[in-house]
Amino acid sequence: MTHGRADQTPPGTGRFPHRHLLGVETLSRNDIALLLDTAQSFKSKLVAHPKDRLDHLKGRTLVNLFFENSTRTRTSFEVAACRLGADVINFDVGTSSVAKGETLVDTAETIEALGADFIVMRHRASGACEYLSRQVRGSLINAGDGAHEHPTQALLDVLTIREAIGRVEGVKVAIVGDALHSRVARSVIWALTKLGARVTVAGPPTLVPFEFKTFGVRVSHDFDEATHNAEVVYLLRIQQERQSGAFLPSLSEYRALYGMDTDRLATLGAGTLIMHPGPVNRGVEVTRDVMHAPQSRILGQVTNGVAVRMAVLTVLSEATPVQELVV
Amino acid sequence: MTHGRADQTPPGTGRFPHRHLLGVETLSRNDIALLLDTAQSFKSKLVAHPKDRLDHLKGRTLVNLFFENSTRTRTSFEVAACRLGADVINFDVGTSSVAKGETLVDTAETIEALGADFIVMRHRASGACEYLSRQVRGSLINAGDGAHEHPTQALLDVLTIREAIGRVEGVKVAIVGDALHSRVARSVIWALTKLGARVTVAGPPTLVPFEFKTFGVRVSHDFDEATHNAEVVYLLRIQQERQSGAFLPSLSEYRALYGMDTDRLATLGAGTLIMHPGPVNRGVEVTRDVMHAPQSRILGQVTNGVAVRMAVLTVLSEATPVQELVV
Amino acid sequence: MTHGRADQTPPGTGRFPHRHLLGVETLSRNDIALLLDTAQSFKSKLVAHPKDRLDHLKGRTLVNLFFENSTRTRTSFEVAACRLGADVINFDVGTSSVAKGETLVDTAETIEALGADFIVMRHRASGACEYLSRQVRGSLINAGDGAHEHPTQALLDVLTIREAIGRVEGVKVAIVGDALHSRVARSVIWALTKLGARVTVAGPPTLVPFEFKTFGVRVSHDFDEATHNAEVVYLLRIQQERQSGAFLPSLSEYRALYGMDTDRLATLGAGTLIMHPGPVNRGVEVTRDVMHAPQSRILGQVTNGVAVRMAVLTVLSEATPVQELVV
Repeated sequence: MTHGRADQTPPGTGRFPHRHLLGVETLSRNDIALLLDTAQSFKSKLVAHPKDRLDHLKGRTLVNLFFENSTRTRTSFEVAACRLGADVINFDVGTSSVAKGETLVDTAETIEALGADFIVMRHRASGACEYLSRQVRGSLINAGDGAHEHPTQALLDVLTIREAIGRVEGVKVAIVGDALHSRVARSVIWALTKLGARVTVAGPPTLVPFEFKTFGVRVSHDFDEATHNAEVVYLLRIQQERQSGAFLPSLSEYRALYGMDTDRLATLGAGTLIMHPGPVNRGVEVTRDVMHAPQSRILGQVTNGVAVRMAVLTVLSEATPVQELVV
Repeated sequence: MTHGRADQTPPGTGRFPHRHLLGVETLSRNDIALLLDTAQSFKSKLVAHPKDRLDHLKGRTLVNLFFENSTRTRTSFEVAACRLGADVINFDVGTSSVAKGETLVDTAETIEALGADFIVMRHRASGACEYLSRQVRGSLINAGDGAHEHPTQALLDVLTIREAIGRVEGVKVAIVGDALHSRVARSVIWALTKLGARVTVAGPPTLVPFEFKTFGVRVSHDFDEATHNAEVVYLLRIQQERQSGAFLPSLSEYRALYGMDTDRLATLGAGTLIMHPGPVNRGVEVTRDVMHAPQSRILGQVTNGVAVRMAVLTVLSEATPVQELVV
Repeated sequence: MTHGRADQTPPGTGRFPHRHLLGVETLSRNDIALLLDTAQSFKSKLVAHPKDRLDHLKGRTLVNLFFENSTRTRTSFEVAACRLGADVINFDVGTSSVAKGETLVDTAETIEALGADFIVMRHRASGACEYLSRQVRGSLINAGDGAHEHPTQALLDVLTIREAIGRVEGVKVAIVGDALHSRVARSVIWALTKLGARVTVAGPPTLVPFEFKTFGVRVSHDFDEATHNAEVVYLLRIQQERQSGAFLPSLSEYRALYGMDTDRLATLGAGTLIMHPGPVNRGVEVTRDVMHAPQSRILGQVTNGVAVRMAVLTVLSEATPVQELVV
C-alpha cells in the first residue's frame, strides 16, 4: 500500500462548503482535495483493518433513487454506506408511484419525510439533480444526470491517478471515445483540469467536436497522436443505448481506430495507466488482455469508488445538520 | 415540537391484546390510544436524538410480503424496522415461487420457517391477511388488503390530527372522494369514530353511497356543505387503477367538484387541516399550492407513518413471544 | 430441542480445506461433518437465545448473484448472513450490465472489487460456479448450477435427517421423482452416500435412468417397492419449467404413481420422515395433509437451511483470509 512516489497534491483543508454533490464543475480545487484525502484515509483504514465497520453515519439513512439502472454505481453507494454504519433503502422507481404519475418533486419530498438524510439519484435528464436539490433539505448526490455530470466517477478516477502517479498536476491524460454523450467525460475533464492535469480528448469528429476545447483540453481525432507520451489513457464506454444518431462508425471500425489491444498497448510507455469507467464492452474499447495488464487500473477504479463514496457521504454529513423530521 | 393545545386524549394503558394488526375495526379505543402514545414517544425521541438507533427489535426479522406494489408503504415499514434494530427482508413476490403456483399459505409458512417475526403483507383480496394470520405463529400486519382495511395508514392519520389539534374527540372531519373503493377510508372512518370524531364522507353518489351511514358517519354529495366548519379535510386518492366501472366522472369534472385548490382552501377556516394518504394525483385531488400550504399535513403524515409503524412493531413484539424456530 | 436418539455421527474435526463451496461431490465425509456440527451449534444458540445477533461475520459483505430467480434460497442466505452480522447486497442481475453484454467474469471481478467477501451464485449452466471460482479471490458459494449441484440444500437435508434420526449412516432413504433434471438429487445423493446412508432413487424410467446406479444408489421404478422400510422418503420437485422433452407423464398420472397422500403415507412406517426441497407443487408430489403430518420435516428443512448457510459462511471465512482490497 505504499506508493511509488510521494503524494505531491496539497492536502484539502477546512470544511466542505456544499450541502449537495451535484457535479465537479462547481467544486473548487480545495473541495476536491478534501474529498480525495478523506477517501484515501478511509481506504487506508479498510486495508489495514478490513473487518472494521465504522460508525460515522450511524443513524443516518441513504436512499438510492435510480431512474436509470446502474447496478454497479448503486451497489457501490450501498457498500460505502454500510461500511459507515448507515441504513440503505433502495427505492424501487419502477414499481413506485412515479410510475403512477407522481412528480419527481413529490417523490423526493416523500423520501425526505420518511427520514432520508441522503438521496443518491440517477436520472436521464441533465439538470434533474440540481432542480431537485432546491426542493429538499437533506443532501442530494448526483449519480449521473443525462449527459451532464457523474461526479463520484470523476473523483474516483482522479484518486486512482493520484494514488498511482503521486500527483495529478501536470499529468498527461488522453481521454478516448464518445465524449459527446458522456457525463463521465465532462466530470472527469472538470476534475482533471481543476487539478492541473494536461488533458487531450480523442475520438471521431462526430463524438469529439472541436467545441470541447472550451473545457480547456486539447482535441484530437488521431488515437496515436493523442496517446503519445500520455501517462494515462482513459477509455470511455461506447454507450450504444444512448446513440440516437449516426455518430458512431461500425463497432469493428471503432475498435480498429480507437480500441485498446495489446499491440496498441505496446506502443505506449511502459508505465502508462489504462483506465475505463466500466462496464467495459470487452473487445470494443479494450480487450481482456489489456483489462488485466499490469498497467490497467480498471478494477482499482471500482475499489476506489467505494472509498470515494464513503468520503462524499462523510464530508456532506459534516457540512449539513442532521435531517430534521417534518413536524 | 410543542403542540398548540395540550393533548386531551387519555393515554393508552396496559398491554396490547392482539398478536396481529389486521384492521382498525377490531381495535378498542384503548388499543388505539396505546399505539398513538407509543408512536408519539418514538417521534419525540427521534426529534431529540435523530442519530440514535434504538434496539427494541434487535434480533427480530421483518419480511415485507407485497402482492401489490407500494414503494412508500413498504419503505416506511423498512425505515421503521431499521430504526428499531430489526433486520428487514423484502420478499420479492414477482419472482418467487408464488409465481410458480405456490399457495399463499405455503409462502407464509416458508417465510416463518426462515425465521420471520413479522410479516407485513399487502394483497389485492379483502380478508387475505386475516386468513393468513390464522396459519402463522408470528405477527401479521395488514399493509392493505383489497378495499377492506389499511390500519397503519389510519393510525398515522389520527396521530397527525391529535398532534395538530390536541385531541380527536369531537373533531369535525370531512373525508372527500372515492370512499367506495378505498381501504384507507374504511380504516380511517373506524379510527376516527372510535375516538369520537364527527365524520362526514363526501363525494359523488357513485363513490359515496348512502350505505356508508352504517359506519356512523354523515354522507354528503356536496363538497362545500361537507367541508363547512370542518377542522380536517381528508382528500382520498382517486385510484384510477381500481376503477372497474363507470363510477367516476371525468377527472376534470372530479377536480371541479371535489378537488382542493387555493380558491377552495380560502373558503375553509384558517386552521382547517388538509390531509391526503398519498400518493397525490397532483392537480386532481389537490394542487401543488395546497400541498405546501401551511394547513397541509400531507408530508407530516408520511413522517408520522414511520413513528406509527415503529409503535406497531414494538407493541406487537411485546404482545407475543419471540418466534420460535421450527424444530 | 432434545433429540429422540443420541447423535452417533462422529464430530467433524480440524479446518475446512476449501475456499469455495461448489458442490458436495468434492467434500470429504469429515468436511460434511464439520459443516453439520457447526450448523447444529448455531441452531442451538438461536433456539436458546433467539434475539441474539452474532458477529462472526461483522465487516464482511455477501453478494447474492442470482442469474435464476430463487426467492427462498436467496432469502435464506440473506437471513443467515444478517444473523452473523454481515452486510448483504442483492446484485440485481436483470438490470445490471450483464444485460448489456458484460461477461460473467467481468461481473464477478467487479463485485469483488467492490469489496465482496462471499459471492452466492445461481446460474442455469452446470459448472458456471466452478468456472467463476477460478477467477475470484473471495469465496464462491454455489446456490444451484444447472442440473449439476445445490450443495447447501443437500447439507440442510442431511442435517434434518441426522437431527431427527440421530445418525445418517445406514439410514434407508428413498428419493422419489425427477432425479434426471435435479441438481438437488445429485447433491443429496452425494451427501447421503458419503455419510453411509442406503439410498434408493425411484421414479419413471424416463426420469430415473439406470445410469444413476453409478452414484452408488439402488434404482427403482416402483414407488411402493422403493419406499418399503424406508426411514426417509424424499420427494423431489417436478420442475415443469425445466422439462424440455416428453419425460413426464401427465401430472395426474404422476400424482397417482408417485405422489404422497395420506393413504400412501399410512402404508409407510409410523416414523418414516417425509421431506421435500420446496417449493412444493401441492397436490402433485405431496398433499397439504401430508405437508403438515407429524412425519413431515418440510418446514424444518427450511429452518435448517438458515443454520446450514450460517455454518457454510462461517467455515469458509475461517478457511480463507479476509478479501483484500485491489490496490
